[in-house]
Amino acid sequence: MAWLGQPVLVDELLFKTQHGIVDQSLHARMGAEPTNGDGFGMGWYGAGDGPAVYRSVSPAWADANLRELAAHVEAPLFLAHIRAAIGSPVQQTNCHPFRHGNWLFVHNGYIAEFDLLRRDLMLAVDPELFTGIHGSTDTEVVFHLALTHGLESDPIAALERTVGVIEDAASRRGIDGAVQATFGVSDGTNLWAVRYATEGPARSLFASADVASVQRLHPENPRLQRLGADDRLIVSEPFSDLPGLWHEIAQGTAVTVRSGGVLETQPFEPQPVTVAAT
Amino acid sequence: MAWLGQPVLVDELLFKTQHGIVDQSLHARMGAEPTNGDGFGMGWYGAGDGPAVYRSVSPAWADANLRELAAHVEAPLFLAHIRAAIGSPVQQTNCHPFRHGNWLFVHNGYIAEFDLLRRDLMLAVDPELFTGIHGSTDTEVVFHLALTHGLESDPIAALERTVGVIEDAASRRGIDGAVQATFGVSDGTNLWAVRYATEGPARSLFASADVASVQRLHPENPRLQRLGADDRLIVSEPFSDLPGLWHEIAQGTAVTVRSGGVLETQPFEPQPVTVAAT
Amino acid sequence: MAWLGQPVLVDELLFKTQHGIVDQSLHARMGAEPTNGDGFGMGWYGAGDGPAVYRSVSPAWADANLRELAAHVEAPLFLAHIRAAIGSPVQQTNCHPFRHGNWLFVHNGYIAEFDLLRRDLMLAVDPELFTGIHGSTDTEVVFHLALTHGLESDPIAALERTVGVIEDAASRRGIDGAVQATFGVSDGTNLWAVRYATEGPARSLFASADVASVQRLHPENPRLQRLGADDRLIVSEPFSDLPGLWHEIAQGTAVTVRSGGVLETQPFEPQPVTVAAT
Amino acid sequence: MAWLGQPVLVDELLFKTQHGIVDQSLHARMGAEPTNGDGFGMGWYGAGDGPAVYRSVSPAWADANLRELAAHVEAPLFLAHIRAAIGSPVQQTNCHPFRHGNWLFVHNGYIAEFDLLRRDLMLAVDPELFTGIHGSTDTEVVFHLALTHGLESDPIAALERTVGVIEDAASRRGIDGAVQATFGVSDGTNLWAVRYATEGPARSLFASADVASVQRLHPENPRLQRLGADDRLIVSEPFSDLPGLWHEIAQGTAVTVRSGGVLETQPFEPQPVTVAAT
Repeated sequence: MAWLGQPVLVDELLFKTQHGIVDQSLHARMGAEPTNGDGFGMGWYGAGDGPAVYRSVSPAWADANLRELAAHVEAPLFLAHIRAAIGSPVQQTNCHPFRHGNWLFVHNGYIAEFDLLRRDLMLAVDPELFTGIHGSTDTEVVFHLALTHGLESDPIAALERTVGVIEDAASRRGIDGAVQATFGVSDGTNLWAVRYATEGPARSLFASADVASVQRLHPENPRLQRLGADDRLIVSEPFSDLPGLWHEIAQGTAVTVRSGGVLETQPFEPQPVTVAAT
Repeated sequence: MAWLGQPVLVDELLFKTQHGIVDQSLHARMGAEPTNGDGFGMGWYGAGDGPAVYRSVSPAWADANLRELAAHVEAPLFLAHIRAAIGSPVQQTNCHPFRHGNWLFVHNGYIAEFDLLRRDLMLAVDPELFTGIHGSTDTEVVFHLALTHGLESDPIAALERTVGVIEDAASRRGIDGAVQATFGVSDGTNLWAVRYATEGPARSLFASADVASVQRLHPENPRLQRLGADDRLIVSEPFSDLPGLWHEIAQGTAVTVRSGGVLETQPFEPQPVTVAAT
Repeated sequence: MAWLGQPVLVDELLFKTQHGIVDQSLHARMGAEPTNGDGFGMGWYGAGDGPAVYRSVSPAWADANLRELAAHVEAPLFLAHIRAAIGSPVQQTNCHPFRHGNWLFVHNGYIAEFDLLRRDLMLAVDPELFTGIHGSTDTEVVFHLALTHGLESDPIAALERTVGVIEDAASRRGIDGAVQATFGVSDGTNLWAVRYATEGPARSLFASADVASVQRLHPENPRLQRLGADDRLIVSEPFSDLPGLWHEIAQGTAVTVRSGGVLETQPFEPQPVTVAAT
Repeated sequence: MAWLGQPVLVDELLFKTQHGIVDQSLHARMGAEPTNGDGFGMGWYGAGDGPAVYRSVSPAWADANLRELAAHVEAPLFLAHIRAAIGSPVQQTNCHPFRHGNWLFVHNGYIAEFDLLRRDLMLAVDPELFTGIHGSTDTEVVFHLALTHGLESDPIAALERTVGVIEDAASRRGIDGAVQATFGVSDGTNLWAVRYATEGPARSLFASADVASVQRLHPENPRLQRLGADDRLIVSEPFSDLPGLWHEIAQGTAVTVRSGGVLETQPFEPQPVTVAAT
């Protein structure tokens, strides 16, 4: 999930909401995995230089430090992620968000048969960036491919090329359905999100329809009632079961959230990029 | 779950079985909590003096060391436990089994409103044993009460007195339904199990009907096929959905498993014990 | 260590200083233990209600999340503590600071033969507060005794009574040298520190002599150069080897640091309090 | 440290010895780092298929599970390692020993400026083995290079080629003093150890002179007194300060310990191998 708007205690959206992300760590309804207990991470833009990242191998529901931070960190822009490991070890360096300079990256989904593709994809990463890969998860490699392909100048185009690289590598290895993804990216000012799958339905992705929706969600919450039209939430699963509050982002779509609550939508079209064989 | 019989790799019963305890940590069907991801513990009697205990705050399904130990520890007698924390912190000292000398203790259930009873019950523990309480969970206090009341000479009678102490303390505080429990105890030779609730249905408890059952469960497993009539399993949830393999232990019952696969059953009747007010 | 003054990134005092507390976790020179690698904690007063507490069982030098928080948490008042466990388990609930409402508490030192005194001292805690004890360390019990004896209305007097309770209990058990301590306390507005030992020299304690000292310590640090006369540091070990920068607090002394950089000193005199035998 | 001989409780050599490896984790005297608190690992050959590996990010001195395993695991062949991280994250996948099939590998030392060499060296790993690299430490890459170069058929020759590969890659990047190492390897039958540095003195390495030495070290230990001439210890630092008990392995030397306590020595001479530029 991601928030862009006025400064808010992380708590309001992590713990104090109906069916929030911490609740989803125990009981997700729309994800591929009902339990997402293999670690947690959040990144935020606040005091100090660049974004802060807190990552933990504990399940989100059981991490005492996460409750502390949520209750005491206030930020205008943050991302949170719960993990269900698919093969790779449960370690902090495999937890999202991943960071490079001012950029944060989260991914809900997977690269198919990543074990077979890992070497090809790591070789396709800019050698200067290679040493920034500390863990063993597919997402960290995807992030470094996106950095290689210009994430910092045009995030959506870079992700389109990145998906192109992965699909090309997969097809040369005879792997189908290479990419299953929602991606979330931020540079501290804007927020980008992508919903895409090479084959079949992509993981779910929703944007808050407008601030009035958020206020209706929490009529009892004075902090949220004070918020204005500039605030925007992007989530994998709606926080509430009430119909009408959330706007589903269509498959094959990229969205840009700019400060001021502006939400722009465009098609997400992978660009074929061929990686030299090695 | 508990095993008493010929030496077996823990793996066979932890990971290599249908709907085993590690699988239950993600998807329990009969427990109060579908997810039991707040730590894990196992104790076994093998090389060295007294029982070994391995406890971890990781979910059982994600603990790399647990997989290693399961695959390489062989024992004729062991207990394993998965935890769903109800309020108390997720820390190793709150994970079962608890140990005192040669004795191991596990508990599936809870003491109602333990926060209100904790001081009364800790005062009721033998002062000599008090300092052996390292964590903050109800089960560790129950175990020390049982030690106070003679666990090492007559385990079932000691547990009957312990439940009596707790029910008395609860009734003086106006707390209903004080004890919800299956207990498992071992001294390295025998195994005892209790199914009891002060009110309403107790947590489920099953014994393997006979060794032929276990063999039918794993016709493909040559190690299990080699086992004899002396082997016995006690579990909270049957490992398999096949009918006929498991024998449900009735509520209000204590069982004793002796070496040789002998299974004795007796009523479990709490003994009123009044703790002096403080 | 403790800071009271203008808001500062925790980093400046934790990582970016010569011989700071994280460096001390590996190489303490004045403490009883050269290595303090058994966990870490910090508490701060900032966004959200009451103080935040981050506690970790990792050594301070190796905790990636601590580096993140230090670089991104800014606060006008915070306490940090490194732990060398003496017998009690390495778990978050044994890490300092301890918290009750708006109050934070840290302790460098020990209660002699705490195992023998633990029950007596826990019984001397107000029964209403008993359930707030989650770990097994001496300091958490000391803190709850201080709360029992009025910490929230007169911190130094409460600590004098608390030390009296402990020394009385120890003397009845024939234990010498009961208390070895520097204590640090805050309510979010003021800071109190105590240096005391029942027998022999107490652990070291220093206050920053004046803000000019801190500025001389970091001539290259523009943030610190901007600070005014209102800022004050209390530390177990001076951050720098330069003479003249630190003011040693005499044994048997309590200090009060008020906002505005005011530092008041008074004798610390334990008050005999007899706990009823049980 | 490594043990090959009759089955022994790990405890005897880990905790019950004067200046053993757990003690060294707090107070090493001969290593480059006096504190080795960034994790621990041990591997042993016992029940079950292949070696077991237990790895932990806790300092060895504080890991309750390590004490349990040491006291209850008995093996004729085991390796233990304490880690002082140099840059790479403290995570289980960076802890030694590393394992492949029946093989275990530990390394005390470093590859100079590994960040600059990591990509070159990972590319030099057999693509089939690449996906077995789960962490980010130099040692895991060294191990996979050794597997690439025939560790399983001729361990010392494979390590000579591996060091050659690394020195070649380093020299092409203008990096001096590429390899600083003692290596330990086992296949469950034999034990190999290497002491080598590209430049300057290598980390220390010792072998137990003969079984009588070990017995003199523990005259009070009946288990050790029962051992015969077949037992052999390899250690980075002698367990005892008594002169005469340990045999220093010369720099630039490889030793082979065979069952029966046979100790063979040969020069260790890196073989130049050029890795294709990429």
